[in-house]
Amino acid sequence: MAAIGSEIERLIQFLAKLPGLGPRSARRAALVLLKKRDTLLEPLTAALREAADAILTCEVCGNLDTASPCAICNDPRRDPHLLCVVEDVADLWALERAGVFRGRYHVLGGALSALDGVTPERLNVTGLLVRVKQDVDEVILAMNATVEGQTTAHYLMDLLGDMKVTRLAHGVPVGGELDYLDEGTLSAAFKARRSL
Amino acid sequence: MAAIGSEIERLIQFLAKLPGLGPRSARRAALVLLKKRDTLLEPLTAALREAADAILTCEVCGNLDTASPCAICNDPRRDPHLLCVVEDVADLWALERAGVFRGRYHVLGGALSALDGVTPERLNVTGLLVRVKQDVDEVILAMNATVEGQTTAHYLMDLLGDMKVTRLAHGVPVGGELDYLDEGTLSAAFKARRSL
Repeated sequence: MAAIGSEIERLIQFLAKLPGLGPRSARRAALVLLKKRDTLLEPLTAALREAADAILTCEVCGNLDTASPCAICNDPRRDPHLLCVVEDVADLWALERAGVFRGRYHVLGGALSALDGVTPERLNVTGLLVRVKQDVDEVILAMNATVEGQTTAHYLMDLLGDMKVTRLAHGVPVGGELDYLDEGTLSAAFKARRSL
Repeated sequence: MAAIGSEIERLIQFLAKLPGLGPRSARRAALVLLKKRDTLLEPLTAALREAADAILTCEVCGNLDTASPCAICNDPRRDPHLLCVVEDVADLWALERAGVFRGRYHVLGGALSALDGVTPERLNVTGLLVRVKQDVDEVILAMNATVEGQTTAHYLMDLLGDMKVTRLAHGVPVGGELDYLDEGTLSAAFKARRSL
């Protein structure tokens, strides 16, 4: 397009690679960035620069932090006997937001998927097997409730043999309405009903 | 959140200010950026840097380009007697993608809106009035078909007095199905029907 200079084209092209931004919203984002140079473009560039310089992948658990081992692995108040296995750093963040877990994490880096060619070798399974031998009492498999996530959980359960392995409960989401739930969730919630 | 370092927090915060990205998708975008450093984070940072350094607002028409006057204003093949007034640079890009217009543009920088406090003084109306006196035969008002856009078009039509002023046609969008169109569009398309 003649009207857009190559610098803007390139910016749009890279913005469009971000998840959640298609070509149209990438164009809108580029325009907003160019209009708000001092309040958005410059600070975002600086934040990207700083993140690129400062953020490491934790060699122990796979979390992203400014140090390796990360703040969670280094925190003496967190129980080293509890290990929660997640697919992705985003899942670790979600559990930390919930503030429900006081042990340590292990980030697999994905879930098994024959379709996408994700084999056990492409996940951090070896690291997990080394860690569970170091004084871990319980492994919590916090995979997504997807086919890939559950396949991964079953695969890991077989590998972990006679360890205490648990998984997250299925059920009605808090605030959820029964009428809008799928049959699988409803049936899981019904089977796992608890006495009041 | 303890699990996210302040560098990542800051990155997420600025990403969330982009149109189209909410807090959740900004977190996903930050993770993807940190995972794809060489293929995404570094090139995006460089593209932002280059755009910030190179892109100017054209003093004549308000377009964004590496030069002022911009490539369109400087292009001798474009008809200087035709002036197309748009609300925003994004609209100029859209018309250029359609490749339908071979004159020059004037970017107002918005549309009149009592609700958002956009008065004529906040739009580039003065510049437009100067330009239309310089050998312009026809002013095409290519505002959005919104209340604000049409208010702006009527306001400009009054200001432009006895000049030849046109506006874009209303009608059925190409590929559109009548059943899905609103009554306003259908009625405009019906009234503006043409003989075959």
